Amino acid sequence: MKRRGILIVISGFSGAGKGTLVKELLKNYDNYALSVSMTTRQPRPGETDGKDYFFVTREAFEEKVSQDGFIEYASYCGNCYGTPRDYVEEQLAAGKDVILEIEIQGALQVKKKNPQTLLLFVTPPSGEELKRRLVNRKTETEEVINQRMARAVEESAGIEQYDYLVINDDLAECTVQTHQLIQAAHATPDRNQDFIRKIRRELGEL
Amino acid sequence: MKRRGILIVISGFSGAGKGTLVKELLKNYDNYALSVSMTTRQPRPGETDGKDYFFVTREAFEEKVSQDGFIEYASYCGNCYGTPRDYVEEQLAAGKDVILEIEIQGALQVKKKNPQTLLLFVTPPSGEELKRRLVNRKTETEEVINQRMARAVEESAGIEQYDYLVINDDLAECTVQTHQLIQAAHATPDRNQDFIRKIRRELGEL
Repeated sequence: MKRRGILIVISGFSGAGKGTLVKELLKNYDNYALSVSMTTRQPRPGETDGKDYFFVTREAFEEKVSQDGFIEYASYCGNCYGTPRDYVEEQLAAGKDVILEIEIQGALQVKKKNPQTLLLFVTPPSGEELKRRLVNRKTETEEVINQRMARAVEESAGIEQYDYLVINDDLAECTVQTHQLIQAAHATPDRNQDFIRKIRRELGEL
Repeated sequence: MKRRGILIVISGFSGAGKGTLVKELLKNYDNYALSVSMTTRQPRPGETDGKDYFFVTREAFEEKVSQDGFIEYASYCGNCYGTPRDYVEEQLAAGKDVILEIEIQGALQVKKKNPQTLLLFVTPPSGEELKRRLVNRKTETEEVINQRMARAVEESAGIEQYDYLVINDDLAECTVQTHQLIQAAHATPDRNQDFIRKIRRELGEL
């Protein structure tokens, strides 16, 4: 029996280290595929089409919406962002666990339509540590840092909607833990319906 | 913050290797405590009071029932069996993950009263393999083997009520997997309410 992949949403506070965690998962294990979002916003310097995002026109985006071509989509600061369905489906069918790195509204949209989606929320060990990490980046102004902290307060309201809380203190430990949480999800009865049907049939026949 | 233990129920087909799995968990990891059941049945040769069971009179058992002293109890073949509450509570408070090895009716009773209980169902990889293991024990008559197989068919109806399905093919792998499933359970939001409250408070104050 071929094991179908799991759709995984990774969300969390800005500064929690989601991006680095996802990179480590992809580097250390071979069962993951990363979903690349489609967006109508302009590429920033250094961003590559097809790697960071698929950059498309608003018309192309809207056509895909009308074809139900996104697992989830949203607009943010006047631009549209969406997760193309075809790539995700293809990878899940091939047995890959597919990672989406999206925020809470998108996460809940995905879970509603795909109840077997695994939702992970990444957080630093404390509020202090979150602020320290944002300050240490040295790329953001104090105003941006304050906005992100305010946003973290809002986002924290949604933690209970997630399946697992991942506390990112030590990156290596956190990567192993996240991998194990995803592996655990493969052992739920709803993800093993073929096996359960098989063993029931065998027991009935013996 | 002291981490409270998780109450774990391990059920599964007779012949699935539950007993051996539980022994391996206790031997290889130090976070587990095994709950010892109380029973009104007579000790069998080789059984030790306080280790295999607490052997008590029917009067003593009924008094404990009247004091709500059991997490779950049931009668089976004219004898009563129950899980004493005090030991379980004491170990959970001390941070131990407490294992109960009980069958499905008891498991569902425990889960209903304690929704955070983790239910694990252990199964061999196939019906054939289950039969092979029962036959190879060489301690059971063909009649008993057939009864156990018939009972396995009934029990298999309850698999979907469990949180995780543990396929016991290789014992060492199965032990590690079971340990990881239990560790994963520690990362759910409902088992981290103190942490979530703490980080919300911190974010609000920064």
